[in-house]
Order: sequence, then C-alpha cells, then structure tokens
Amino acid sequence: MEPVTAQDVHDAATRIQGHVVRTPLTVGPDTDRPFLVKPESLQPTGAFKLRGATNALALLDGDRRERGVVTHSSGNHGLALTLAAVREGVACTVVVPEGAPETKVYRIRALGARVVVVPPAERESAVEDLVAKEGATFVSPFDDRRVIAGQGTVGLEILEQSPDVTTIVVPVGGGGLASGVVTAAWTVHPRRVRVVGVEPELAADAAESLREGRRIPWEPERTYRTMADGVRVCLSDLTFAHLRDRLDAIVTVTEEEIAEGVRALAHGSRLVAEPSGALSTAALLSGKVETIPGRPEATVAVLSGGNIDPDLFVRLVEPD
Amino acid sequence: MEPVTAQDVHDAATRIQGHVVRTPLTVGPDTDRPFLVKPESLQPTGAFKLRGATNALALLDGDRRERGVVTHSSGNHGLALTLAAVREGVACTVVVPEGAPETKVYRIRALGARVVVVPPAERESAVEDLVAKEGATFVSPFDDRRVIAGQGTVGLEILEQSPDVTTIVVPVGGGGLASGVVTAAWTVHPRRVRVVGVEPELAADAAESLREGRRIPWEPERTYRTMADGVRVCLSDLTFAHLRDRLDAIVTVTEEEIAEGVRALAHGSRLVAEPSGALSTAALLSGKVETIPGRPEATVAVLSGGNIDPDLFVRLVEPD
Repeated sequence: MEPVTAQDVHDAATRIQGHVVRTPLTVGPDTDRPFLVKPESLQPTGAFKLRGATNALALLDGDRRERGVVTHSSGNHGLALTLAAVREGVACTVVVPEGAPETKVYRIRALGARVVVVPPAERESAVEDLVAKEGATFVSPFDDRRVIAGQGTVGLEILEQSPDVTTIVVPVGGGGLASGVVTAAWTVHPRRVRVVGVEPELAADAAESLREGRRIPWEPERTYRTMADGVRVCLSDLTFAHLRDRLDAIVTVTEEEIAEGVRALAHGSRLVAEPSGALSTAALLSGKVETIPGRPEATVAVLSGGNIDPDLFVRLVEPD
Repeated sequence: MEPVTAQDVHDAATRIQGHVVRTPLTVGPDTDRPFLVKPESLQPTGAFKLRGATNALALLDGDRRERGVVTHSSGNHGLALTLAAVREGVACTVVVPEGAPETKVYRIRALGARVVVVPPAERESAVEDLVAKEGATFVSPFDDRRVIAGQGTVGLEILEQSPDVTTIVVPVGGGGLASGVVTAAWTVHPRRVRVVGVEPELAADAAESLREGRRIPWEPERTYRTMADGVRVCLSDLTFAHLRDRLDAIVTVTEEEIAEGVRALAHGSRLVAEPSGALSTAALLSGKVETIPGRPEATVAVLSGGNIDPDLFVRLVEPD
C-alpha cells in the first residue's frame, strides 16, 4: 500500500486551484489561548471535502468521465462530489439510505446528482451494482489516494499562510483530512510542524487503533452517540497507515467541549461550525492541545465544516 | 477637497498587505438569487475597519508616531485603530461616552488602548483637548483620505478575485467603505462595475442626501432606531462628494430585511454578521438589488463586520 507523497499533494494543489476557496487564517476565539483558525466552512459546499472530490474528478480519464461517479455519502462528501462532478459535466450518483435527513438529500439533488434511495444495509452493494452495471467510478470519502492528496492542500496552504506554524490541529473521522495534512506537514517540514488529531470521546476508534497499533473499528451503534456526525466513521487500512506513520498525537474531547467549541467559534471568531468542524477548537480551548502565549500564528486549528442543523446551532450558541 | 484616487488605494493595498486578512469570496445564502460574499467579519477585529486604520497608521511620520493617535469611536473603528496602533508600538487613546456597552470598552482596553470616559456631549471636545495637549493625531472613522483609501482595498481585492464582477454592494454609514470601494471600482474599470450602496430605512441620510444633491444629516435620535448600529452615523462632506460623483445607486432596507440577512448568512453561508454587516445581503435577498441567474460571480456583497451582541444574534438566527 503506497502512501500519498508530498508531490501528490502539490500536484493536487495545482489541479484544484481556482475550483476551491483558498480559505484565510483568522483569529481563534480565545485571547488567553491564542491560535488561528482555517475556516473550511467557507468552501461552496461548506466543508473541506470539495478539495479531495475536485482532485479525484480531475484525475478521471476520458472514458471514466463518460460513465460517471458514484458514492454513498449523503453528508459533506456527497455534496462535494456532486458539485465537483457537475462542474465538469460528469454524471454523479449518490446512494442514500432510507431515512436520511430530507434537507441533506434535497441539497444533493438540487446540486444535480441522481439520488438512489436504498435500505441502509444495501448501501455498499447498491454502489457495487452501479459500478458493475454502468461502469461508474466509486469515489470513497477518504479511502482513496486522490482524495487524501486533495485534502492535504489544507495543510499546504497553512504552511504557506503561517510559515511560523509549529502545531496543526485536525479533526479525525475516516482520516482523509488528517492523512493529507500530515503528509503535507511531515514531508515538507519534517519534524518542525506537529500535527495533532482530535476525535470525540464517543467515536475514538482512531485513538484506540493508534494506541493498540492495529485498526480497531467502532460499531455505528457506538459512534452514533456523538453529535459530531461528520466523524462517526472509522479509519480505513490506508488512512490508518498514514496516521500510524506520520501523526504526532491524537486527543479526544467530550460532547460538552465540542458544544463549547461551536459556541466560541460563533461568538468569538464569527464562524458557524458543525460539531465535527469544532473538534480542533474544542481541543485547544480545553487545553488538551497546548498553545503558545503571545504567538497565535504558531498554532492552527482546522475548522473542517459548517453544515449544522439550524435548530442544533441555535441551541448550542445560546449564551449561558 | 481632493478626492481619493485609484493610486491611493493601490498604495494602501501595498502598505497593509500582511497586516490584514485577504478575505476570500464565498457563496451567498440563496441559490435562486446567486451572489458571492466578501466576509470582512474575518478580520482580526471583526470588521473591514482594520484596513483604513492600518493605512492611516502606516502613513504617520516619526514625530506623530511618538505622540500617539486618538479617536472617539467605541465600535469597530476604535477596535481597529487600537490594534493597528499597538502593532506599531504607537499609543492609542479612545474617547468613550459614559454608558457605552461594557463589553466594547473591555475589548478596546484589552487590546491595549487608553480609554477616556466622558459625558456624551463632550466626546468631540475631549478629542480636541487630547490633540491640543498631547499632540496626538486624530484618526476619524471615515472622514479621512487615508482611511478611505484603506477601505478601498476591499474593492480592489474583489476586482482581482472575481474579474467578471459587474455589481458590488456595500453598506453605507459614514461612507468611508463605500467611498473607497467606488474609487477602486470606478477608476480601475470605469463604467464596467456598478457599485450600489445600502442603508437601513431608519438611517437613510445618504439616500436622502444624494437624492437632494446636498448633505442632509439625520439626528442621532432618529438613526438610533435601527438595529444596524454600525451605520447610524452620517456622511461627511468628504464622503458625500465621493458618493455623489461615483456611486451608481443607493437602496434602503427594512429592519425585517436586515434580520433576514443575518439569519440567511448564518444558516446559508456559515457566517456570523452584525446587522450593519448584513445590509448588502439584505438588499440582494429582498430583490432591491438584482442578481444574474446562473452567474454568482457577477455580484458581490460586502459583509462589512460580525461584531454582534450574542443575545441579539441568537434571537435573529432562530429558525421560524
């Protein structure tokens, strides 16, 4: 299993330039624990996922473009793959489990994807069917070198925008973003920039896997308890290998700390984050990842996305 | 009265580079009325004002730097001037009226300004005293060519980031931002880019002044009724002249439309806006400024700031 290289990430950056927002670094919400925030919530689909999806689409050859792409994520990756495909005139199918939130399905359909609704247990086989029958290309949300390389451009931009950065903090779900960012940081500035992953305590499969030295997936019944719905998924062999070899540390945060992250980002940094997007901020505000007094530019928290249910958002940001 | 030139704005852009955030263009909240948003709320002090203040500070000569700067804004300009001064090691005094919100005064003091509290009627004379006694330089929030040139860099960036823009929509309070943006747009691409100003109906002195062809200030007792506290001030002779000669149109919006702007930016664009900051979005969502179907890049709304009271924010973003 060949790992993604710094060159892959650089190539992805060239490929996706002009198709994704170069998000700025903006001030974190706490002056006592100073850090900068990279708001990927400002991508057109509201999350970093557009980077990986755009890179994967750009790498499809002519024949595969004709046959379209397919995925089974009804979340941020589904939105991202749809937009990336539609922009290139490539057909996109999103397989959605019965009972998926109507607002999410609506947005994916409105962007231009074909939506196929199946019983939850048949999601993967439905994708396999489409691959077999239509010759569509499956694009995984994270278990894909092209996708990881695209997400890594978040890390490249941080290194360019804050050359004095020493710590980058990223949420970990399937591990695509973290794998890309460690690749950018580790290979470009070996041992000078630490990358720290953050998971909810209630979906800490990566922390457990890295501690035990082998991949230990958590069942959906278990990870379902966290409100950070974007990171309920588990590492793949590919992302596990990247994090095992390159990630410097991983920490976990409580649901209350995640809520405080969402609240602080809204009132202190003027940014709307989804719970998964607020994980890195939560780790810094709680002190689980240290900051350097007087040097906000040394620490960067990746705010991975901002697609939050309006009711949940209002509940979380209500002042105490 | 010499107007600000495109060269002044270009020079300001060079001067402030690296000291302010180059804010991206991100998607507006409405797919039926597509436009892009320039979120100046992501500046370190939460508003575009840092641009003008930074330019004014950079233009002070050595002797004036020693004697410090002074202003009487306890809002976004006060925060901006303080940060710009502190970064350059220049002393900053902010004259604040008795009864100003404690949170605002606290933030200004925390950034490092000296705060002088006086009865509201004595604000201007207190500033004059400091200028006379200490030789401090008064930096107006908008009635200053250096400040206008700095704010104009918002317009320059928009022209660079979206070369196909045909309409830029900006809030109008004292008129510094609008004067700067019209200068950037009007002189760089004459007659190709329209700039439209937006005011609350309840603080529409600029609209009335431009209609009558002379400056007609509104009394504070009248403008106080709008929740858009950042634009309760009136044009100066200097900003009136810029807008009279260069602004293409001006529209007004209701308080309900402003509230809808704040709500839509939070839920649809993942951005926290203060009411003044949401004016341009309000004008576009209400159809008072037209958008072009299928061409979001043609229309840019400047989101001027995000410093909103948390309780008001929660009340405004509550889903219906």
